[in-house]
Amino acid sequence: MKLINSFKTMIERLKEHKIKKRVAVVFGVDSHSEVAISKAIEDGFIDVIMVGPKDKVEHYAIFSKYPQSVQFIDVQDSDEAAKEAVKLIHENKADILMKGLINTDNLLRIVLNKEKGLLPKGKVLTHLSVSEIPNHHKLLFFLDSAVIPYPTLDQRGSMLSYMASACRSFGIKIPKIALIHFTEKVSAKFPHSLDYIQLIEEAQNGSYGSVVVDGPMDVYTACDKESADIKGIESPISGDADALIFPNIESGNVFYKTISLFAKAEMAGALMGTICPVVITSRSDSAMSKYNSIAMACLTSNRIN
Amino acid sequence: MKLINSFKTMIERLKEHKIKKRVAVVFGVDSHSEVAISKAIEDGFIDVIMVGPKDKVEHYAIFSKYPQSVQFIDVQDSDEAAKEAVKLIHENKADILMKGLINTDNLLRIVLNKEKGLLPKGKVLTHLSVSEIPNHHKLLFFLDSAVIPYPTLDQRGSMLSYMASACRSFGIKIPKIALIHFTEKVSAKFPHSLDYIQLIEEAQNGSYGSVVVDGPMDVYTACDKESADIKGIESPISGDADALIFPNIESGNVFYKTISLFAKAEMAGALMGTICPVVITSRSDSAMSKYNSIAMACLTSNRIN
Repeated sequence: MKLINSFKTMIERLKEHKIKKRVAVVFGVDSHSEVAISKAIEDGFIDVIMVGPKDKVEHYAIFSKYPQSVQFIDVQDSDEAAKEAVKLIHENKADILMKGLINTDNLLRIVLNKEKGLLPKGKVLTHLSVSEIPNHHKLLFFLDSAVIPYPTLDQRGSMLSYMASACRSFGIKIPKIALIHFTEKVSAKFPHSLDYIQLIEEAQNGSYGSVVVDGPMDVYTACDKESADIKGIESPISGDADALIFPNIESGNVFYKTISLFAKAEMAGALMGTICPVVITSRSDSAMSKYNSIAMACLTSNRIN
Repeated sequence: MKLINSFKTMIERLKEHKIKKRVAVVFGVDSHSEVAISKAIEDGFIDVIMVGPKDKVEHYAIFSKYPQSVQFIDVQDSDEAAKEAVKLIHENKADILMKGLINTDNLLRIVLNKEKGLLPKGKVLTHLSVSEIPNHHKLLFFLDSAVIPYPTLDQRGSMLSYMASACRSFGIKIPKIALIHFTEKVSAKFPHSLDYIQLIEEAQNGSYGSVVVDGPMDVYTACDKESADIKGIESPISGDADALIFPNIESGNVFYKTISLFAKAEMAGALMGTICPVVITSRSDSAMSKYNSIAMACLTSNRIN
């Protein structure tokens, strides 16, 4: 598989392979969702089932242009809409779940429901993002900015495993994954730095396939060769990380919002661990981020139609 | 006092008020330190005492041009150099301490020494940064990216208090200080969010002077009005924060390095709580960041020469 090194290439790949997926949208009544969905329908890679208050969504201009690409399920309550959308996934009427104007916690509660939810027993739920940062030399994958507060060692293992697969689905053969900390030092004061040592050992023993894992290291060492050189750090990553795994939700979330607000990064994101991709961009994310997230979900969805 | 709303204005203020301070530099043998020190000497706001291996620093071109602005103390070991520089502060031979190529932990150990260090009993040591982010509408103050891992409530109180003073020294009369989290929700699962409620109450009762404190909130809500509006958040800060206080060192550090690497922010930073400003920029920070940090230290140093 050829490397996907930009969001533009990702979209081209979808078109080239004529990929088209069915997206169940929960309460897609905000303007950013409208723009994102419209563009994805226009570009031909999704059909949608709009689960929400019909009177508020049916006005989307795109729907009159592509009536064959849209269905409505009229539900006035956002929690009920989420339950209905999850059911569509189980009934194989939709391939991807997308969050609109519903609180993330509420949606997650329904996604995580043991009987009717989307997370198979024993699987870890986490949120993966991909960012295209202006002037940076490659796409940057990272997690977790939204779901797991303080991962256990086992959860970190699952995160690492999802990360390696996500990178591979973009054609990165040997992903370089950096385990982030505020320094390069391992210390018992920071238990995640001890977890990192264990994960690196596991990676070296082949537990995560063809992959380079290193850390602890800071964002400079992971993403900037000059910084790593100045600090004299020898690492197989040394400024060229494909992916970052953050120690906790606060640092992952700060990274997400900082590159997006201050570095004008474009983002794509989805939940990992669920039986289908779940797009849960933040209400204040841009329309482009939501569009990219839909596209990424289409690329990584395994369901064949 | 007139508002300082850019690093350029900060430098102009120093020149206008003919401020000149004496900086004790610990092992200033790296090229970024050389450039920063040279520019500050040339701009007339510092004299330096270079404490380190004399043969490695005396070649700085600037020193032959301004011989009256430089003294050398020849010390070959970096820890010894730090001890010597701290002594200069106590002997009132220098106003500001600056870190060169010495490990931060080693320098901090010496700064924190109970008998010979620079931190008065009962004071909290923390690291404050100021950033100028291209296209952002104001300077952004934040802490802590380097010193306190997981602050206690008391430590957060001190951090808030230092933050308010630092903002005021830049002419911000009523600083707007955002307490950062990954969401706006308070929850016992995240003890710092409970601390925030307490701090806001204290601020409302006047414990920190004229100041607006609000949180928990994420980086979007703190720094971007549009995001706050989309989320429907009502806060006296709502996108216009002067200052951010991060919940832990990992998130503060990620913010520092991310805006500096990906948003091309210029930075200035210094330790707070010590008897004099201590400049401890990271080895891989740019020469401009080190220069700005020296200037900020000169602006905030209270010692009259």
